[in-house]
Amino acid sequence: MSEIQVQLQEWMGSDKSIADAAWTSSTSTEGMAYRTPADVVRVVNMLADQGHSTPFESVVLRFWLRIPIATDRQIMTHRLQSSNGLSGRYRSVPSDFHEMPDDVLAIAQKAGLGDSIPEKYAMHCTAANSWYEETLANAKEQRNNGLISSDEYKRLREFVRGALPQHNYTERTTVMNLRSWANFLRLRLAPSAQPEIREVARQMLQQVTESDVCPFALAALARNEWRI
Amino acid sequence: MSEIQVQLQEWMGSDKSIADAAWTSSTSTEGMAYRTPADVVRVVNMLADQGHSTPFESVVLRFWLRIPIATDRQIMTHRLQSSNGLSGRYRSVPSDFHEMPDDVLAIAQKAGLGDSIPEKYAMHCTAANSWYEETLANAKEQRNNGLISSDEYKRLREFVRGALPQHNYTERTTVMNLRSWANFLRLRLAPSAQPEIREVARQMLQQVTESDVCPFALAALARNEWRI
Amino acid sequence: MSEIQVQLQEWMGSDKSIADAAWTSSTSTEGMAYRTPADVVRVVNMLADQGHSTPFESVVLRFWLRIPIATDRQIMTHRLQSSNGLSGRYRSVPSDFHEMPDDVLAIAQKAGLGDSIPEKYAMHCTAANSWYEETLANAKEQRNNGLISSDEYKRLREFVRGALPQHNYTERTTVMNLRSWANFLRLRLAPSAQPEIREVARQMLQQVTESDVCPFALAALARNEWRI
Amino acid sequence: MSEIQVQLQEWMGSDKSIADAAWTSSTSTEGMAYRTPADVVRVVNMLADQGHSTPFESVVLRFWLRIPIATDRQIMTHRLQSSNGLSGRYRSVPSDFHEMPDDVLAIAQKAGLGDSIPEKYAMHCTAANSWYEETLANAKEQRNNGLISSDEYKRLREFVRGALPQHNYTERTTVMNLRSWANFLRLRLAPSAQPEIREVARQMLQQVTESDVCPFALAALARNEWRI
Repeated sequence: MSEIQVQLQEWMGSDKSIADAAWTSSTSTEGMAYRTPADVVRVVNMLADQGHSTPFESVVLRFWLRIPIATDRQIMTHRLQSSNGLSGRYRSVPSDFHEMPDDVLAIAQKAGLGDSIPEKYAMHCTAANSWYEETLANAKEQRNNGLISSDEYKRLREFVRGALPQHNYTERTTVMNLRSWANFLRLRLAPSAQPEIREVARQMLQQVTESDVCPFALAALARNEWRI
Repeated sequence: MSEIQVQLQEWMGSDKSIADAAWTSSTSTEGMAYRTPADVVRVVNMLADQGHSTPFESVVLRFWLRIPIATDRQIMTHRLQSSNGLSGRYRSVPSDFHEMPDDVLAIAQKAGLGDSIPEKYAMHCTAANSWYEETLANAKEQRNNGLISSDEYKRLREFVRGALPQHNYTERTTVMNLRSWANFLRLRLAPSAQPEIREVARQMLQQVTESDVCPFALAALARNEWRI
Repeated sequence: MSEIQVQLQEWMGSDKSIADAAWTSSTSTEGMAYRTPADVVRVVNMLADQGHSTPFESVVLRFWLRIPIATDRQIMTHRLQSSNGLSGRYRSVPSDFHEMPDDVLAIAQKAGLGDSIPEKYAMHCTAANSWYEETLANAKEQRNNGLISSDEYKRLREFVRGALPQHNYTERTTVMNLRSWANFLRLRLAPSAQPEIREVARQMLQQVTESDVCPFALAALARNEWRI
Repeated sequence: MSEIQVQLQEWMGSDKSIADAAWTSSTSTEGMAYRTPADVVRVVNMLADQGHSTPFESVVLRFWLRIPIATDRQIMTHRLQSSNGLSGRYRSVPSDFHEMPDDVLAIAQKAGLGDSIPEKYAMHCTAANSWYEETLANAKEQRNNGLISSDEYKRLREFVRGALPQHNYTERTTVMNLRSWANFLRLRLAPSAQPEIREVARQMLQQVTESDVCPFALAALARNEWRI
């Protein structure tokens, strides 16, 4: 079964990078020489608590994501990121889709919609994907036979993916700085967020925590509910 | 049949606004009093030809769009816009979809995929939409009967739209300044752009032209192939 | 005496534009027809209170400012604006400067720095400006005499403005959307902000209020201390 | 003598990061396994030549700069950066200034402005700085004596720096991605740019080149005159 996947691929910066950015405003070059690790912790907490946001942009994170397209559309609404997504114009798209999770199945059963609801959902998703694959296989053969050109094949391919379900999996690489990502977490870890994107946010946070990128900044931002 | 639709809803600024922004840099307040309409035209052309881009951000355009979701995803990659899109979390989504256009049908026929290809495409789109409508109708009834809560109904609704095709129509309101929109046109009017988004760009350009928002800036940017 | 000046020059949008942007997400085109002015007020308040920020980007404001350079540098830190500033490379810059205000004079007197402190401040500012004017007048004459080229004159001019004080007045045209401007007000109306930029923010708010651009959004944002 | 200084402090990414971002769009996860270093070079060149810009945002650079304030104001016009600057509100500012360089002196002499022109320039800069230092020393003493409060001292300090020259040195920490920085180089390495900011751009480029951050991307962007 396909699942939402997150990989933290690269990062830049640390708690010290954040503090150094802030000290650019307030501290002489000579004064910087006397700053200690304890000063870093103190200033990072002060910045988070008082809402001085730009220094947090000194930490930059790069994630790779595997997500349903409907979730990807929520991710794309965040403008302060650099991202590239799998393209249905440039390649044949994968045909695996996000299956109905237990919480939705439970609601369907509670509503008396019948036990077959996940199967019906899956049937529509599978039928569209099979038709896409089959159509492209036939078209590719005729392209190889010279009946249609490569450009014609690509035009057909980009159009027929339009029948594919919005829960097909897609992939995205995104670079966000810590400030923008904190805003992402504030919105996407919230109980009101859709469970699928909450899972993305949860995995992101777990990996950044485990990689020990900037532990004090992370704790300070979490304490302020990611509002910076 | 549903079609791609564009409405230019509001705008701010003019050729003169662009010139005035530029003159902030170079001209005294007293000198501004002597500027003529011919000076406006001259400076707007100079700005476009020499690549002085920020003054063009003084013209702001607001569009309403009705587009397939696959096209909307291309629109969402543009970060320098303020936009709101129809939400499958907040409402039941419309069930009309983008039908197969003649150019794709011609390719399918040329490839010998059979005359029924638009019907098969439409069948998959229709089947998923009918299942969505039917499932929500049943669930809504059970919500009204008290079997499931309103939140449970919404969770079910947001999930089952995942079976809907990527060519279902959606709606978007977007505010772009002229510089960002010129970049949009440069990429989306290009012969290599997907025909669906070229149609969006074509309708946008037609309406901005007809509304006479900033005729000299438009001509100057078009002459430079929208590169600013 | 020179003073901080603000002019609201153009704007786009209204309370209704904000509501319409939000309704793109949640309301069918048919449903829009039944929306009343009271609905506009209700939704604008809800958006402000719940922190739905993008619809507020549908109101766009253009200001012209006359401010000291030190204040301008604070304004330039706001990235979500489109702005053009008076350029010491493209023209001879004005030689009026921001005089010492009463609150600073009172502190200087309280500290026993002497009654002449505003005069000494003004003397340094005036001396540098006079030298700039005199140097450029001489250089311009020699440019006219052909001793130096126009490019050489401009290089000299752009360099010698470096002696001018940071409180010389400059001019800026800026376009901000309501969301970005609310953030500006949150930071710049605060008691901790420098009095000079608080005066800019105060005049901006007064003019947007008097022009009745979006009265309900303004009231809702003010109630939330401009946090959106 | 004070001089323009640049330090490349941190960076993220590489030629491979750029290629990987692009391959997110076009290549299956399985296909990625077969990509070679030669493929990286090929795709980076293709992206630069065809103007696919977002993948270049995967390389992120952090610089520390020591520059005259007039130059800093040109740097601040670049919005796609994360930066923090030395603050005349938070600390006493350094009193060294950018001295008149030889090219300006040569113009002044050619124009017959007299041999003393660099001395006169320096005299105005020095006089203002000395007055600032002296005034703050006196005020600090009276703050220590309890005649004025700490807040009053800070208000006096933030105001009297307004007499300081625009060529006083300041410091800035800035984080830019490679795409935004390429745009910076396109504008700031150009022969028409002011020599002071060309020196900033030259030092930046030298350090990124020497650090071997992304040699193939750098060569490809340079070949396209930094237009991406």
